[in-house]
This record gives sequence, C-alpha cells and structure tokens, in this order.
Amino acid sequence: MLLTPRLAVLLPVWLFLSEVGAKVPRVAHPGSKQAKYLASKRPPTTSAQVSGSFTGAGWSASAPEVSAPYANIWQELSNDEAADVIAFLHNQTDLNLTAAADAGSWDNSIMRVEILTPNKTDVLPFVDNNQPEPERWARAAIWVGATIEPYVIEYQIGPLPISSDSVLTSLDWLTTKGTTYQRNYDADEDLTSEFMYNVSSSIQDIVTDLLNGTASGSDDDDLDIWGIDPLWHPTPDTTVQWVTFWRIPSSIFDGETLMPQGLYFEVNTTGRDPSGWSVIGWLYRDVYYNSTESFHAAWEAGELEKSTLNLEGPWIGSDYRGPTTKVGENSTMWASEKAPPVMVPPSGEDGIRYKVDVDNKYVEWMDFSFYVAFRRDSGVRLFDIRYRGERIVYELGLDEALAHYAGNDPVQSGTAYLDTYYGFGPYAFELLAGYDCPTYATFLNSTFHADEVSTTHPNSICLFENDQGYLIQRHSDDAYVASTKNIAFTVRSASTVGNYDYNFDYTFYLDGTIEIVVRASGYIQSAHYYGNDDYGYHIHSGLSGSMHDHVLTFKADIDILGTSNSFANHTVAPVTTSYPWSHGMERSTMKLFRSYLDNEDNAKLFWPGNAHSMFMVVNKDAPNEFGEPRGYRIMPSKGSGMHATIQNSSNLLNSMNFATHALYVTKQKDTEPRASNANNDYDTANPVVDFAAFFDGESLDQEDLVVWFNLGMHHVPHTGDLPNTVFTTAQGSMLILPHNYLLHDPSRDSRQTVRIDYNDSGVQAVHTFGADFSNGLVNLSSVVPDFWAYRGDIDVRKFPYDPQHPYNDTESIV
Amino acid sequence: MLLTPRLAVLLPVWLFLSEVGAKVPRVAHPGSKQAKYLASKRPPTTSAQVSGSFTGAGWSASAPEVSAPYANIWQELSNDEAADVIAFLHNQTDLNLTAAADAGSWDNSIMRVEILTPNKTDVLPFVDNNQPEPERWARAAIWVGATIEPYVIEYQIGPLPISSDSVLTSLDWLTTKGTTYQRNYDADEDLTSEFMYNVSSSIQDIVTDLLNGTASGSDDDDLDIWGIDPLWHPTPDTTVQWVTFWRIPSSIFDGETLMPQGLYFEVNTTGRDPSGWSVIGWLYRDVYYNSTESFHAAWEAGELEKSTLNLEGPWIGSDYRGPTTKVGENSTMWASEKAPPVMVPPSGEDGIRYKVDVDNKYVEWMDFSFYVAFRRDSGVRLFDIRYRGERIVYELGLDEALAHYAGNDPVQSGTAYLDTYYGFGPYAFELLAGYDCPTYATFLNSTFHADEVSTTHPNSICLFENDQGYLIQRHSDDAYVASTKNIAFTVRSASTVGNYDYNFDYTFYLDGTIEIVVRASGYIQSAHYYGNDDYGYHIHSGLSGSMHDHVLTFKADIDILGTSNSFANHTVAPVTTSYPWSHGMERSTMKLFRSYLDNEDNAKLFWPGNAHSMFMVVNKDAPNEFGEPRGYRIMPSKGSGMHATIQNSSNLLNSMNFATHALYVTKQKDTEPRASNANNDYDTANPVVDFAAFFDGESLDQEDLVVWFNLGMHHVPHTGDLPNTVFTTAQGSMLILPHNYLLHDPSRDSRQTVRIDYNDSGVQAVHTFGADFSNGLVNLSSVVPDFWAYRGDIDVRKFPYDPQHPYNDTESIV
Repeated sequence: MLLTPRLAVLLPVWLFLSEVGAKVPRVAHPGSKQAKYLASKRPPTTSAQVSGSFTGAGWSASAPEVSAPYANIWQELSNDEAADVIAFLHNQTDLNLTAAADAGSWDNSIMRVEILTPNKTDVLPFVDNNQPEPERWARAAIWVGATIEPYVIEYQIGPLPISSDSVLTSLDWLTTKGTTYQRNYDADEDLTSEFMYNVSSSIQDIVTDLLNGTASGSDDDDLDIWGIDPLWHPTPDTTVQWVTFWRIPSSIFDGETLMPQGLYFEVNTTGRDPSGWSVIGWLYRDVYYNSTESFHAAWEAGELEKSTLNLEGPWIGSDYRGPTTKVGENSTMWASEKAPPVMVPPSGEDGIRYKVDVDNKYVEWMDFSFYVAFRRDSGVRLFDIRYRGERIVYELGLDEALAHYAGNDPVQSGTAYLDTYYGFGPYAFELLAGYDCPTYATFLNSTFHADEVSTTHPNSICLFENDQGYLIQRHSDDAYVASTKNIAFTVRSASTVGNYDYNFDYTFYLDGTIEIVVRASGYIQSAHYYGNDDYGYHIHSGLSGSMHDHVLTFKADIDILGTSNSFANHTVAPVTTSYPWSHGMERSTMKLFRSYLDNEDNAKLFWPGNAHSMFMVVNKDAPNEFGEPRGYRIMPSKGSGMHATIQNSSNLLNSMNFATHALYVTKQKDTEPRASNANNDYDTANPVVDFAAFFDGESLDQEDLVVWFNLGMHHVPHTGDLPNTVFTTAQGSMLILPHNYLLHDPSRDSRQTVRIDYNDSGVQAVHTFGADFSNGLVNLSSVVPDFWAYRGDIDVRKFPYDPQHPYNDTESIV
Repeated sequence: MLLTPRLAVLLPVWLFLSEVGAKVPRVAHPGSKQAKYLASKRPPTTSAQVSGSFTGAGWSASAPEVSAPYANIWQELSNDEAADVIAFLHNQTDLNLTAAADAGSWDNSIMRVEILTPNKTDVLPFVDNNQPEPERWARAAIWVGATIEPYVIEYQIGPLPISSDSVLTSLDWLTTKGTTYQRNYDADEDLTSEFMYNVSSSIQDIVTDLLNGTASGSDDDDLDIWGIDPLWHPTPDTTVQWVTFWRIPSSIFDGETLMPQGLYFEVNTTGRDPSGWSVIGWLYRDVYYNSTESFHAAWEAGELEKSTLNLEGPWIGSDYRGPTTKVGENSTMWASEKAPPVMVPPSGEDGIRYKVDVDNKYVEWMDFSFYVAFRRDSGVRLFDIRYRGERIVYELGLDEALAHYAGNDPVQSGTAYLDTYYGFGPYAFELLAGYDCPTYATFLNSTFHADEVSTTHPNSICLFENDQGYLIQRHSDDAYVASTKNIAFTVRSASTVGNYDYNFDYTFYLDGTIEIVVRASGYIQSAHYYGNDDYGYHIHSGLSGSMHDHVLTFKADIDILGTSNSFANHTVAPVTTSYPWSHGMERSTMKLFRSYLDNEDNAKLFWPGNAHSMFMVVNKDAPNEFGEPRGYRIMPSKGSGMHATIQNSSNLLNSMNFATHALYVTKQKDTEPRASNANNDYDTANPVVDFAAFFDGESLDQEDLVVWFNLGMHHVPHTGDLPNTVFTTAQGSMLILPHNYLLHDPSRDSRQTVRIDYNDSGVQAVHTFGADFSNGLVNLSSVVPDFWAYRGDIDVRKFPYDPQHPYNDTESIV
C-alpha cells in the first residue's frame, strides 16, 4: 500500500536546470570546511583494494542461523537495486544528469541513492495483519549544479524493482518546509579553496613570518585552510566564510585539528563567479584588519606580536609512551606488557548463544529479536524490536548529531556541525576484532551508495554477548546465596566523522532493558588559545580546548502492546499531610503523583532536577492484572541526558530545534520520520526539516507516540583530551526499561542463575538449573567457580574476651 | 602525635550506672524493627563452623606481593588488639561491665570495639614528613542498660598496645552534639517483642480470621511482627511504635518483606516497665480504632471487609523459572543452558597485573596505589589513594545510607532506615567467586568486633582487573587505526543489610579516573496495597511496591598536590555578545564562566540542570605549565546524583542533613570525620553527629577540602522488582576524574594500545608496543586478534552506473 504523499505529482525539475557547466571534480560530500579536511585524508575512490573474503576475524560465520519471520523491508538498497535506480535516473532526461565520475560542479549529478524507509502505517498491516508487503521505494539526492543558483533536491523513485510502473516523484511530503529544494551556497568549493590558497599566497611573506609555513594547494604544503560550517549569509543574497590555517602533520597521526595557527580571514564567496569574490578582513591576536592591505601594513610596521604556534610533536601521537613516573618501587604500568583479562565464550563457537539471519540482518538473542538497518546519514538503526514476541520499539536510531562550538575567534564561533550532513554511514569503517568488539563477535557489513558508487565496509557492525562485570541479581541470607550473571547483548558500530570517533552501542539486558550508548574519542577540534580564555582551557603551548556541546538526537518509536499509547509522568514530591492514624498531626513525607502528557504543545521536556520524575510510554488500555498500565520507562543512565547550551544559535538558526530540550514526545506521522535532514546544513535558516514544526498541538492520549531524546555532553576539553578524548569520561546513555510491563523480573527465566544452599556444616546443595559448565575451547578449570568451597555468610568468629571463654587462640571457636 | 580532643578528661561514667539488672539476651545490633527480622535470619553466634583455609577460590593467593611503603594505620583492630581493649574495658570498674555473653538488657556491656581512625593531621606528618607514626587508639561503644534511662555511649581507648599508659577518655570531640551519650529508647526489645506477641495473641480470633496465621513468638509461627525504624517520641518522654504483621516464608526464600499483611497496631513502650506499656490503637483498611476493644467490636460486628492477603508462592523465589514465551520459532532463553562468555586472564595466574600486600591491605595497580580499610559501620574504605605517586584522595568511603519510605500506613510512613546503625560491615559476607567477582580475583577478609566476638568474613572483599567491554580510546583515518583497551581495576564488596543487597565498587581507570558505584538488589520492603495508591504501584495481589528514597552519602577527601585546595565551578552558559570581527553584530553563543566556592555557607550544592556546571577540586597554587590549576573533577556517571525528596522528615528530624543536597563541600576537620554516626538512629531528634553543624562559614579558599556526595535513587518498585530488584536499573555512580591534572591522557602510557597501519594494499605494520600476546592457561588462538586480516577503512566499492565503467559484476572494483 502506497500512501498519498508518495503519489505527489512529478516536480517540474527542468525548471531549475541550465546547460552552463564546468568540469571541476567534486568530492562525495560537498561543502568546504571539515569535508575538505576529510577529503584530504581519505583514500581515493578508484584505488581501493581488498583481498580476502568479507568474513571477519573470530567466529563471525559461526553464529547459528535463523530465518527472519519476514524480509528486512528496511534494509539498504542492494548494489543491483542502486544500479537500477541510478540507471532509471539517468533515463529521466529532464534531470539532465551527468555521470558522477564525469560531473563537475556545474553539472547535475546523483549525490546518493538510498532506500526510502517505508511508512510505518504501511509496514504494520504487512507485519501484523498479513497485508501485502509495502512497496519498496528509493530516494535520491540530486546535485543541481547547472544553474546560477545551484541547489540540492531529493526525489523518490519506485516502486522497486524498476519497471515501467516506476516513477520519479516528489519527496516534499517528507519535509516541513514544503520542498526538498535546498539552496547550495558552496557548490564551487574547489574554486573556493583555490581562491583561499591565492589569498594566502598573496601574503606569503606574512604567513612565512607568523606561521612558518605555506598553504598554496600544493602537495608539499605544511598548512591547510578551512573554517566555519555552516556558511554565513549576512543578507539572504550574500555568502561569507571565516577560515583559518591548520598545520598538516608530517607523521602518520591525524592531529591536524590540534594545530590551529591563530590567523583568520573572512571571504565573500557570494555567487559562482570567483572574480567577484573578495577578502573582507583579517584577524590576528583579536585585532581585526578590514583589508589585506591594512593587515599587511600592520605587519610591515612591526605591529604584530607573534603568537605561539601549535607545532607538531609527539604530543599529537596516540602511541604508547612508556613509563613516566613510579608507584612504590615499581615502574609505571609495570605489568602492562602482559595481556589483560579478555572475555571468551567458554565453549568456543559452539557457545554462541544468539542467532542471525545475515541476509536480512535479523537477530535473535534470548527473548529479544530485531532487524538491523543502515543509513548513509545516521548509520545503524534498529526496527521492530520485540521482547517475548511483542513489539516494544518500532524504530530506534540516531537522527542528528550536533557539535556546536564557541570561541573568541570567528572560526570556532562559527562552527556548528550537523554531522548527518557528512553522514555516519560513510565513516563507519571496519571494527577491529579483539578491540572494538570481542574476537568472537559476529560481524556484519554495511553499504551505502554515493556518487554512483556502491561502497561496502566489511565488518562495520558487530554483535556480541558479554558479561557486564557485575551481577544482575543477588541475595543472601543465613541459608543461601542466589546470584545471577548480568549477560547482555550488544550491537555496536563506530563512525569516524573527521576528527571524532563515535561509538554507538545498543545493548539488551536479561531484565528486558535496552540501553543506547554513545561515546566520543578521537581528536578534538581545538582553537588557538590567544584571547580564548572564556571559551576553554589552555591545554598546550598555543592551544585552547575549544568548548563545544555534543547533542546527539535519537528517535525511539516505542510501541506498548500496539500503537495506542500515552506518555506518563510519575513524580515523587514532598507533601505534608495527616492520616487517620496520625492523631491529627501533620507529617512531612512524600507521595507519588501520576499524570499524562495531553498533547504536543506540552511535550518538550527537560529531565527534572534530582531525577524526581519518571517518564514512561504506557498503554492505558492494557493494564496488567493489578491495574497498572503496562509500559516502558525512559531514563538517563550514564550522563544526565543533554540539551544544547545555546538556544538561538547564530549559526544554526532554524536547524537545531531538536537540541533545545532533553527529550520530546510527538504523535507518530509518516510525514515526520526524522527530526532533521542531512541537507539542512546547506541553508540552516531554511531547513528541509524544522523539528519545531512537529509540535502542532496534536493529542498524545492513546496515540502512536515517538520519543526523541538527546545524549551528549558539554565538552570543555582539558589536557586529558590530548592526544585523544577518552570514551571513559565522554559518554552518555539512555535506558528504555520495562515498567510494570511483565509481572516479574524476566532475568529469572535465564539459567545464568546459581543458588547455593548452606548451613553451619558448609554447602548443602548447589542449584545451577541445567546450565552447562562443561569444558570447551577454553580451559575451564580456571574459570568455573568452585561452588563447594563457598562459605557463604558463615562467620569465622573468636571470643576475644569472655569469662566463660577465656581468651585463647587455640580455644577460639572457628 | 595525639591531638587535644583525645586528651579530654575521663567521663564520670559511674554517674550513669546502676545495679538494676535482668538477664534478657540481646542481639548484636539492638533495636526492634528490621534488626529483629535480621536476627531471626542470621546464624547463631556460637554454632558457626568453617572448614578449610581462608584462601578464596581462584588464584587468590597468587597476586604478586609488594611491601606497603608504610603500615596500614587505618586497618581494623586485630583480634589480639580487640581482646586487649575488651580486657582493658573490663578492668575499668567504673564501667561496671558484664561480659557480653552473659549480659542482658539491664546490664552494661560492650557493643563493639573498633579502630579509632587516626586524625588526618596526625597521619600526614607521619606519611609525608617522616614524623612519628600516630598513636593507635581504639573506640568502644558501650551499652549502658543498668539504669532506668538506658543509653549508649562511645569512648576512646589508647594508646595501643594496651599498657599502663593507656587510658579511657571521652569521644565527645567527635560529635556535634557535644557528647556521645545517646538515649536508648529500645533497650528492652525482647520484652517489647513479647509484649507485641501478647497483643497479637489477645486478638488471635481476629488474626486467624483476617490474616490466617499466628504471631505468638513460637518457632512455628507463620507471622512475624515488626515495624517502624526509628521509634517515635510524640513528646520527649514517650516512646511509641507502629508495627505490622509479616508472613514468614516456609520455603528457603528470604521473601518475608514481600508479604506484609495489612494490619497495624500502635504501642506505647515508654519506660522500662512493660506493665506500663499499652496498645494505643489499631489500623485496618485505613480505619483507625483507638483501642483493642473497639477494633474487636468492629470485627465482631462484621464491619471489617477482608483485605487480600500476601501469601507465599513461587513468586517470592529467585530461582530459574524456565521458558515462558517464544521468540520466533525458539523457546525463550533457548541457549541459556550454555555457559555465557566469561572473562579470563590470558596467562593464568602469571597474568595477574597488580600487587598486594595482604597483611596491610595495600594494593598497587598500574599507576594507582591505595590502602583498604574496613569499618563495622560502613564497610570498605580506601585511604591514601595515590596516582603516579601523588595523593589524590586521602579518604574515600560510605558514610551513611538512608532508605526513607512513605505510605498511607504508619509502618511505611514511619520507616527511614539509617543503615550504618545496622552496619555494612557485619553484613559483608563472602563473595561468590565467578559471580560476584571473577574467579581470578584476589579475595581479602574483613573483620569486626561486636559483643566481644571477633568475626572474620572470609573473601568478603575482592580485587580484580577486567575489560570494561568498550575501548578507552580509538581513532582511525585512511592510514591507520589506533585502539586502546579499557582495562580497569575494581575493589568490590557486597553487604546484605536485611532484605537489600548493596554492591559497592571502587573502580580505577587507565586515564586516572576513579568511579564509585553503588547498586541495589535483593528483596524490596513492600507494603500492603490497601489505600496505598499514592505511595507506590500495585505489584502483586495485595502488594504495594512502597516508594522510598535511597540516599547513600560518601566522603571523598580529595587532596590535589597537598591539602591547600579550592572548589571550582566552571559553568557553560549562553551569552549574546559581539566581537572585533563581527561587524557590530551580536552573536548568540556561549561562554565558560569560572568561579570558586568561597566558604561553607554556600557549599550545599545541587547538580545543575542540563549538567551545565563542572565542579572540581583544584590547587590554585599549583597551575600546570599552561596556567590552568591542576585538579580532579567530580561528576555523576550512572544516575544523576541524588538527594532526598523529603526535606524535613518527621522520622529523621535532625539526622538526615547529609541528604538534603546532592553534594557538599566542607573544610576538613579532625573533629568532623564522618557525616553521621551509627548511634544517631537511637534518637534522631538529638543525633550524635548532625551534619548541618559542619557548615559554619569556614573559608574554602586553599583549605583542606572534603567533598560529600550522594548516590542512590527514588525507588518506586514495579513488577520488575519481583522477586528481587535488579542491579541493572538500580545503580548510581560518581566519577572522580583528572581535570587539567596531567598534560596528556595517561592511558597513552599503557601497552593496552595497538596501532595498525594500512594502505590500499592492506595492513603494512602492526604496533603492539611490547605487549605480550603469548599463550597461557587459555587457548589464545581464540582470543588473539588477527590484526593482519584487518582491512581498516578500506572500502569495497562498486560503480553501479558509470559510462566509463558499465555496470558489470565482474568488472566491479573490489
């Protein structure tokens, strides 16, 4: 079944096309700034070589197989599908497409093709009610360069497979702007680069003097030039950008973002004719020069005091550095050459306790099942997460990632990355078995289709069970101890978006809980320290840590026993009250107050102080047998949730409304599948999707609800972020946990439990409930507990002074 | 060096003594209520038998040895020391002590003896400046029952070893009240019990009818009676308590606290003469009866509707229950009979990478070293935690644990446990190797001395390294991937205080961070559901989850390069401002605002909304070479920190001032070593230590600072708490992390790092920095990564449509 919006009429795309063209090559992800930096570090498309099979290390191939109950309708386009869609697009002569490999910035070409995620209202009848499978459609982003006002635009193509019935239609129904048309003010970024290099060369004397380097566009440059993202439009018709110089490392280490040089210039790059571009001004040591001439004059006059340069050294490298200090009589890290503890499945590959349908990316672990999908913009997404056969989350995944900087310099002040613009998919590279994931993990590949190239990253998603290092349950008394291992299952990926490495975990627990974790490592983007005292710490010679906010917005489409759900707020609060038994006295105590969110107008939420409110998605119409509505709660775990410090960013304008609060609740609509759009960054004043438009007073009372929540951190990097931020202290997580959902803790239904009964004579019985502790690949004599040696809570006692038991070592009662 | 307060004159203790006596046996930890329940479940002192040595399972004995740089001056009293102190006390004829084994509630006897933690100002000269070792002193709590107004009181005894120079002196200097004297209103709890059983028996007809059981004090009772903690004093001279009936499980499971029966009575137990005690009233189904007679009459008149009883069933058991539902075609938990993944040290016992001085409980791991101490009240404490040889935390440990309930019934409403009254030490039993801790952990024993009995719990503290399941660092680009394992070291103990099991972790990370974690499992204390809708969820037939707040107060005496420290607040906040380069335009951005806490009056803090402030202990006088003061930050990780909902508890009065805020900063004083006192619970209106008194306007500017922080949760148990709360969702943690402390991330100095270099031809080099991956006890062929199989961020690409590369599977560039 295809929804009305998809039947929208063909856009008259020819209206926007022109024949003007130039053959400037274009990188996959347009834009100046970071993209340029990225492009310089990435291998060229045509030279990639891979030997060997796709099978990962470890026992990747050995996870027991299962057949998915239905095909993964969310799965990315196959290479064949992508090729057919691309060919179909080339057959649409109105688009006037040039093959991507030949296209320049003045051509029209295909930026990317991808599955168009099917509408939930089309999927549920298929999955739940035996209705026909939803039609499969693709979406395509088109670079329209053959015009004086270039833009990007998205279309939908389908149904698939391509046939005579397939059409190209508008995707405007997926936007809040009413159109996917997005003006591209940076179409000629190679010319922009060339222009900037020329600007630099025009004052090579100063650059040599102040920065001791060259930025000319040559391969042997030791300086790079890039700057703000997104670009600024002081008036709707002008485009300006501030850029700065960065030192290019000569070593292997990717530490360019640790070496800002402290010299800035602003250029007007309005329009497509470089001859009309100009330098607006220069900034050095907080002094603004309104022309290259005045800057040059000041330098010649000896008015420029030299700032400390951020130069390369071992400090940008992440290698082992060796002992530095001493603990006691031992060298630092005296034992770190020994291999640390490592997790293994005790029975080798036979010990794998989950099942995978690799073709459908469908996974079953204990009572959970789900489908894995992958998107160019946001990486891994999970669909139809079921627990004990009941759907609890229809869709779970990242929607947008904001990194908003601030600074006394215009480049830091002007930087506010919307990372889905770059995409988490293209940068989700192979995971390192034994490090990113256990060697025994199952590895899956991921694929995306950009610039008419289908790219597969082998082993870029991993699945594994591990022991969380603490129990999930314990209790002991004088007669027994009962203990249950906390074994969890994780889906992991990591995306290196330029300088930063994001680790994404979706972890499933035996008590029915799902945890979403995001962690950040890699290189910070730093600033030159001069004058930046109010914007970060002084962390190296001329370096400021450059404060910034990370806000990662996730979509959690929670469904509790169907799609008629409500959002409950249960608050604990102090009260003063009297009782029938209190003899008329008031008591200072507390109560639980229960309420529901009525509609979207009240559904932009903060996490309350002291965590005194619990937020749940419940089904009012599905109370349990004790009358409590069954539901799942959403609760921050690591970190405290997050929203952006800046509420009206001069950089992001209407494109960060997903970051103003900690979480949001909306009514699910097929037309509002995502809180953002990868093309918003092209024109942040006029985003394709403005999240604020989702809030239009709709009822949230027993409706299909979506929760959007933010993770992240206020990151004020300190010296411990050098050379890389550590995941340990840069992470946030959210729990989606059962709340009056079942009638007991479901981890009781797992055999990870042992009960040891004892009395004063020692252990009387050991109950392992059929769990297998037999030997396997690993020498289990070292890891199987000796339950019979346990003494439980039996004390070893001595009566040190007692007239009846005079103190005597040998007489002590032991 | 002995401080003045310890030289206080001998208290005229004889003033309080009398010769009136009765020989009622007394349990170790007096008080009715939970203590009684505990006592009924614990093995009798005299029958404990242990066979075998103290050595734990696994490789406990095999941790490499190290000699502590100085003796553990915080270590608990040895059995010999305790015996000598007890003998010394018995020689103080003024105390008129009866041997504990013979003592009744009308005697004076020794409740406990313990090390008196030496004053910090005495310790530092010894440790840091070669001054003489501080004198070793003991403290003793004395039960003074031989008086019409019984009390408990504490003294100090020393110096040790006991000699003719040793004296018994006052401990009043350790209190805020000015005296350790604490009135004991529950000295005759066995008589109180007897009285309550008699009350129950007097209406056995009703108890049989409504509760279908008997509470007579007999061994075959199926009902128990206990109630509020602490006791109430409507006037200073009266003591009243509400109690209720609980069903005693017939199975092994310790689920009594899941079976409240919904019938309550209030008794006046003022004074020591039971003949003066009386029933004040009864409560059933929210109806109050002001006498036993009126209650009986109502029952006889058929006016009492019967409430649902909470009866025993499999639902209170924590055993494996087996499959219940299906995922796909598979049974639930289809594979849980297979052993799950398990962590092992790859080289067996030779792989242990930390050192222990078992006698001194001194530990070295990587760059950390510390001493472990153990206290009856609070369990494990760590002292002199050093990182790279510099002390960063002088003392770290639990100070108090509040569990404050609320309810429509007087027992829940009146329950507010101060758990150090019961003590975490006596209930820290043996840990189960392979479950509570890895089998390869090193286990230490703990000892406490109560009622003239020295009790050692073998293997009750464990030390282990493990892999945290995610990396501490990663970065990749087109040329290399660098990854560092997140190996951490944990000190763990677990205390089962009645129904609840608390897990305490102190975890040390390679980046210099310390994490303090507390988790709760075991049985909730529940309430009868009748009328309790506003106080918890209906979770079983007649059962309310009974809302409560857990607030666990920790002391962190942080020292940064000495004891002259300041408490910094760095806040990120939005600002609107213009810049030299902004052409006169205002920009909406943010800044970092730095300030210091000036004095204690402003030092009761909440965690700010959106975590927008960072709190650090820094040394202003010790800036790093870039001018930033070196420090350690304190930051909530799991959970969001905590403080109590109720701010003026009718139960706790002046005894919960540590729980009103999320964290506090005070100037360190030898006279303020702990935020609470185990005896506060005896008389909460007049606590021995009132934390509020610590705040007296002292400067916090470059002083010796102590941070007191709270962990815990607002616990509104739902069905998933049955039968036991799960640690997974009931945990909180705090990070104490370096902040501009070193000049780089110290995990770089560990060999847990690998760098793999690659190019389009594959892996070019693997750098393991001397780390040993050789074989050992475990078959490492399964766990050593095959680095050379890694393809890094090399893509597998296809050109699906390209005029120059016509789409063709075999021609695809792979």
